[in-house]
Amino acid sequence: MTRTAEPFDAIEVIRAKRDRQTLTGPQIDWVVDAYTRGVVAEEQMSALAMAILLNGMDRREIARWTNAMIASGERMDFSALRGTGPDAGPKPTADKHSTGGVGDKITLPLAPLVAVYGVAVPQLSGRGLGHTGGTLDKLEAIPGWRAELSNAALMDQLSEIGAVICAAGAGLAPADKKLYALRDVTGTVEAIELIASSIMSKKIAEGTDTLVLDVKCGSGAFMKTEPMARELARTMVDLGRDAGVNTSALLTDMDTPLGLTAGNAIEVTESVEVLAGGGPADVVQLTVELARAMLAGAGVTGVDPAEALADGRAMDVWRRMISAQGGDPDAPMATARESHVITAPESGVLTRLDAMSVGLAAWRLGAGRARKEDPVQAAAGVRMHAKPGDTVQAGQPLLTLLTDTPEQFDRAMAALEGGFEVAGAGTAAADGFAPRPLIIDRID
Amino acid sequence: MTRTAEPFDAIEVIRAKRDRQTLTGPQIDWVVDAYTRGVVAEEQMSALAMAILLNGMDRREIARWTNAMIASGERMDFSALRGTGPDAGPKPTADKHSTGGVGDKITLPLAPLVAVYGVAVPQLSGRGLGHTGGTLDKLEAIPGWRAELSNAALMDQLSEIGAVICAAGAGLAPADKKLYALRDVTGTVEAIELIASSIMSKKIAEGTDTLVLDVKCGSGAFMKTEPMARELARTMVDLGRDAGVNTSALLTDMDTPLGLTAGNAIEVTESVEVLAGGGPADVVQLTVELARAMLAGAGVTGVDPAEALADGRAMDVWRRMISAQGGDPDAPMATARESHVITAPESGVLTRLDAMSVGLAAWRLGAGRARKEDPVQAAAGVRMHAKPGDTVQAGQPLLTLLTDTPEQFDRAMAALEGGFEVAGAGTAAADGFAPRPLIIDRID
Repeated sequence: MTRTAEPFDAIEVIRAKRDRQTLTGPQIDWVVDAYTRGVVAEEQMSALAMAILLNGMDRREIARWTNAMIASGERMDFSALRGTGPDAGPKPTADKHSTGGVGDKITLPLAPLVAVYGVAVPQLSGRGLGHTGGTLDKLEAIPGWRAELSNAALMDQLSEIGAVICAAGAGLAPADKKLYALRDVTGTVEAIELIASSIMSKKIAEGTDTLVLDVKCGSGAFMKTEPMARELARTMVDLGRDAGVNTSALLTDMDTPLGLTAGNAIEVTESVEVLAGGGPADVVQLTVELARAMLAGAGVTGVDPAEALADGRAMDVWRRMISAQGGDPDAPMATARESHVITAPESGVLTRLDAMSVGLAAWRLGAGRARKEDPVQAAAGVRMHAKPGDTVQAGQPLLTLLTDTPEQFDRAMAALEGGFEVAGAGTAAADGFAPRPLIIDRID
Repeated sequence: MTRTAEPFDAIEVIRAKRDRQTLTGPQIDWVVDAYTRGVVAEEQMSALAMAILLNGMDRREIARWTNAMIASGERMDFSALRGTGPDAGPKPTADKHSTGGVGDKITLPLAPLVAVYGVAVPQLSGRGLGHTGGTLDKLEAIPGWRAELSNAALMDQLSEIGAVICAAGAGLAPADKKLYALRDVTGTVEAIELIASSIMSKKIAEGTDTLVLDVKCGSGAFMKTEPMARELARTMVDLGRDAGVNTSALLTDMDTPLGLTAGNAIEVTESVEVLAGGGPADVVQLTVELARAMLAGAGVTGVDPAEALADGRAMDVWRRMISAQGGDPDAPMATARESHVITAPESGVLTRLDAMSVGLAAWRLGAGRARKEDPVQAAAGVRMHAKPGDTVQAGQPLLTLLTDTPEQFDRAMAALEGGFEVAGAGTAAADGFAPRPLIIDRID
């Protein structure tokens, strides 16, 4: 008997999904819009999110849900983007998104590397929460660097330099922002449908032509198992293509941290090593593979991105990109006030270095935040001296813990307890050890 | 990294149920208590309620949940109750609860009938919401009658008269009150575990020795199908017994309204007819059967409650009970300002009179409310002139709609469209018609 101008009723939509029905397009459009307007209450959306988590959504429902979240805000448009010079043609755009992992600094060398080949890379990024680091937190370790750019400055930098890593504006998919905060406190984060539409609504609203997804899988990733990671990748690739974005995905390992550093300043330094033609093999490999996928998506073929790392062209773009946002690429990075070394308990082969343990340790040392409003320490983190498969000697440094707040060492060491294993030299475990490949699969 | 004095975390409890785990006793105690205190947020409880609806709770979890809701408020105690006179012994107490239906006025004749045999009947009741009527709304059609009684007045009336029908105090199971309001707007009403614990937490907190449940089943009931009604009955009987209450249940039909009236004043009048030894057969049958079950539970055997309806003893208790609460049992009841008659479309046998249709029509005519704060019309409702199995003649009155607000006739008639069927005389449908028995099963 209630009279209302709303075309649907929240309870009706919740019941439909609760009873395993397929939601109609207009129901989805309405519930996302009405939630953004505050007409659908938080407690109603959380019941719906739980019903979606437990009863699922089909491909058509997820696509509609994603579109409804995009429609809740502004949509960027890079179609007018041109290269420099009077006769420059339209510039293709390519973007990468990682589902998050420990030591994942790949965006830093990747964006300038791809820009070398005339593809514009608008990397709208976020800050870290919990055990995975945030790209903006890392770059903010560079003295003077600013994450916030106006849309006009973003376009100028893309035209002139070709690569931007900056904060995503609040105008993109505000429905997603509201829904994500709700899912975070209601145990409904882990719905593949909602994860996929959350990521893709932002990425599609960003207006890139090509999108390459790095879907992580393992202890330090959001998706612990390969089947779940594969399902998420497949769902996101479908969503991207349905929306006209040239989307592909790599499925990559996150049982082990990426590279030899997990933190902020130390990850920037490692990224600069990669841009200088050096750096850890896994970081180089993943950077080059993702660059290849982005370039292929943008129609750039017959080039080997490894060359632009070796010959300094990627480093040139990096330096211009950092300077354009106020950063000094030559400034010395902050160093931690205190350090603590963990040594190898015996000689043999390092067979496990758990990404979640390292991520938690870095977080507790001050590299990450527990709440959105917390600050992070630029210099805090974990430096690794060996990776799985490496031979180690008893007593050699395995990990160096870095922090400005040494009272956190105990909690960081507790996080690392059981987080690594050394198999004695000559044992079957040591001789037969083969690490999981970094790139598990490609989904096109 | 959040520090809190709470022993559990709401997200952890939600996740456990979401992932089909059994909640521990301390988790259940905490989540119900913390929700009542406002520490667990509405949107968290709604996600948990949806997870419970979809993933279930086992018998031990439901019992614990029910106890936690009882523990959130006060608990009544009738153990000191005595009959009148200096040497009167302790009085047993018995209570009836119906899951709600259309035309269900049984509490009105039942409470005084059982009291005739020295069993105290403390019927703490509620108001109606939606298409099922509320016992207090019906009694409030009696001029002067008051639903609110202090605990002291309740005890006095039970001692002296033996029967009380009054409003349940706000102190009983406040957790249930809060949770019910939340479930109502989040599509989580239909969880058998939560329905059972909601009803039983209030009934157990009321402190009765014997409880007889009238679990309705059919179109006009909350449980549409027999298996669901049976599961609810079984769950509630188990919960009652686990709590030391002598509990049994009848499973009764609610495809057809009870009696020949659905409304407020007209249902009181029909109840008084039953107390005078007359009234519709189905109302008399169910009143007597429920009285038998309550008396048996209270240890009163070898009596036939039908006699106390026939000889006026139940009527005597009724008149004293109504008077004690300020009502005038002889006052004329309100009559509706307008009426509209629906006639039989052809001659034959009435084979269907849908309880939900009649309930909705009565509601729309003004007998019920859409929101808690709405008033109800004393005189509004639907009078039935035939019941399934009765022979009807084309053009004879089938239903009379009663209201003070005739602009509602159209909406009431729309509710009744398709709500009844007459099978032509001599057809197989008419000759072979046998209505579903009123009492489907007994669960002890």
